[in-house]
Amino acid sequence: MSEKTIFWDFDNNCIKFVEQTLLPAEYKIISCDSIERLAKAIKNLEVRGAPALGVAGAFGVSLSTFIHDDKNMDGFLKLVFDDGDYLSRTRPTAINLSWGIKRVLQSIQNAKSPEEARENALSEAVSIAEEDEKMCRQIGDFGAELLPDKCTVLTHCNAGALACYTWGTALGVIRSAVAMGKDVSVISCETRPLNQGSRLTAWELSRDNIPVKTIPDSSAAFLMRKGEIDAVIVGADRITQDAVFNKIGTYMHAVCAKYHNIPFFVAAPSSTFDKEHRENEIEIEIRNRNELAFCGNKQLMPDCVDTLNYAFDPTPLELITAIITERGIIRPSFDENLKMP
Amino acid sequence: MSEKTIFWDFDNNCIKFVEQTLLPAEYKIISCDSIERLAKAIKNLEVRGAPALGVAGAFGVSLSTFIHDDKNMDGFLKLVFDDGDYLSRTRPTAINLSWGIKRVLQSIQNAKSPEEARENALSEAVSIAEEDEKMCRQIGDFGAELLPDKCTVLTHCNAGALACYTWGTALGVIRSAVAMGKDVSVISCETRPLNQGSRLTAWELSRDNIPVKTIPDSSAAFLMRKGEIDAVIVGADRITQDAVFNKIGTYMHAVCAKYHNIPFFVAAPSSTFDKEHRENEIEIEIRNRNELAFCGNKQLMPDCVDTLNYAFDPTPLELITAIITERGIIRPSFDENLKMP
Repeated sequence: MSEKTIFWDFDNNCIKFVEQTLLPAEYKIISCDSIERLAKAIKNLEVRGAPALGVAGAFGVSLSTFIHDDKNMDGFLKLVFDDGDYLSRTRPTAINLSWGIKRVLQSIQNAKSPEEARENALSEAVSIAEEDEKMCRQIGDFGAELLPDKCTVLTHCNAGALACYTWGTALGVIRSAVAMGKDVSVISCETRPLNQGSRLTAWELSRDNIPVKTIPDSSAAFLMRKGEIDAVIVGADRITQDAVFNKIGTYMHAVCAKYHNIPFFVAAPSSTFDKEHRENEIEIEIRNRNELAFCGNKQLMPDCVDTLNYAFDPTPLELITAIITERGIIRPSFDENLKMP
Repeated sequence: MSEKTIFWDFDNNCIKFVEQTLLPAEYKIISCDSIERLAKAIKNLEVRGAPALGVAGAFGVSLSTFIHDDKNMDGFLKLVFDDGDYLSRTRPTAINLSWGIKRVLQSIQNAKSPEEARENALSEAVSIAEEDEKMCRQIGDFGAELLPDKCTVLTHCNAGALACYTWGTALGVIRSAVAMGKDVSVISCETRPLNQGSRLTAWELSRDNIPVKTIPDSSAAFLMRKGEIDAVIVGADRITQDAVFNKIGTYMHAVCAKYHNIPFFVAAPSSTFDKEHRENEIEIEIRNRNELAFCGNKQLMPDCVDTLNYAFDPTPLELITAIITERGIIRPSFDENLKMP
């Protein structure tokens, strides 16, 4: 995976990104030159994954500085900050999105002209993207040490190159382990309702010739009981003082891993940590019923039935064996050790 | 639900059944007058659900007696018994299918003429269907006593009227509780990969005005932790000396229910019990990758990636609070109490 998931087009001063809802049937790069289009891409999960959302937010603010051209600098900044606010509300649970937006907004708050703001914003956004790749590779190197020389790893959703600028967090650990010469096979949970596991994780691992099989989310526990899973690795959208927020289903895997004495690892950059909040203060995004009611042209539910379509769940830290960050591995007791990164 | 899932057409001497793969978009009754067509219906899950498969097998043998017309009685019986063998191999895990077939074959083994065989076979098959309804209502009445007056029950797959002749096992318990005046809401897991939960359970409960919401399978544990699930009820495809075989995902729900101290009930007629075998002697059906790779016209996986698509999993009896049968409720220790039904 040398490609980048989302990047700046310096020739046209716009954002380019891989349209992930089309995968695996089609690999298409979208040129995005409006905040509305970027907001739509984030809401519809054309761009998704916590670290990639940080990069998307950062490039989004950059894009805003290129779009607006108010002569009055206060007016200009207000327009850009408003765009930042708007983008950060597109998805409420992932912390990286607003983190990337805030970083770029800070870099321009003292700019004297739109030109200076554009230069600062783009430079900061590019730094965020490059730091993201570096962090993923550091996470990968730390995490790879935790895996046996030969193992089968279960993952949920896509915490891969497609969820980041490149390389990936959970899948970065697997890539780094393979690069080290370890023999790693992956079981990818399809991850309902939007199938990021079967559509994206299976796609990007198979492109890298890393052995991968897809399962229904509900069969993970059965494979654990059969002794076919050596470890679970997932990413994270937000890590509060007491819980890891990640794709719905993560908690179920953590409970089942605990029951079968299988290590459960979370791989996430420091920007994922939200040390100011506890689990019960975080809003969990509830997504549209149509994600469960239809798949392609197939109707999966009667029209009169409603859904509970939570996008994320919190996994209490006591179910987690270790959190792998770019600064090192954090182990229990998390109360004490989470102060580190 | 006054309709029957599968029944005999006395005017045309053929089987009629609800084509369940078309639900919820279309409710269609199929006329089936060949063993090949019935085998296809069973393999493709047009007819599915353990008790309904028992009835399907029974009517299948009846149909065979109407199709063949060998003058030599030994030759006639051989053709019918071969059809029975063939039908019983269409799905290996569910025990009811071969149980229904065997019962009707036994009823004709001493018949003196094809006419007598047809009469005996049809009479036995109709008895099996009528017994199934009676058993479901008895299971319902016993099970309903286990539910609180106001509760939310989680179920997986479809152990409903559509899985039986009518009324249902797990959903029969819910119907009986509602008929008793209890206030029961249902959380229906969509049940990947074929979505029997969202397509069938949600459909038949909403037709009966029983409140039902659909969730991704993977969010059950999250709802359990939030305190939103009071009990889990599922059906069973086979109950050995040590485990309940049911739709893949049942084991995961049982582990999570145990972790959250939520009662886990299995509702199944005595014909589901296989006291001669233990878990490790039972073959678990592995189904085609296309069930996971496509949904309607949508491709969910790259062509080069394989699946592990187990249709069932075994749940050890120690995770089960009670088994509800038409003869009463069986509680632990199952070692002792399973001798009863």
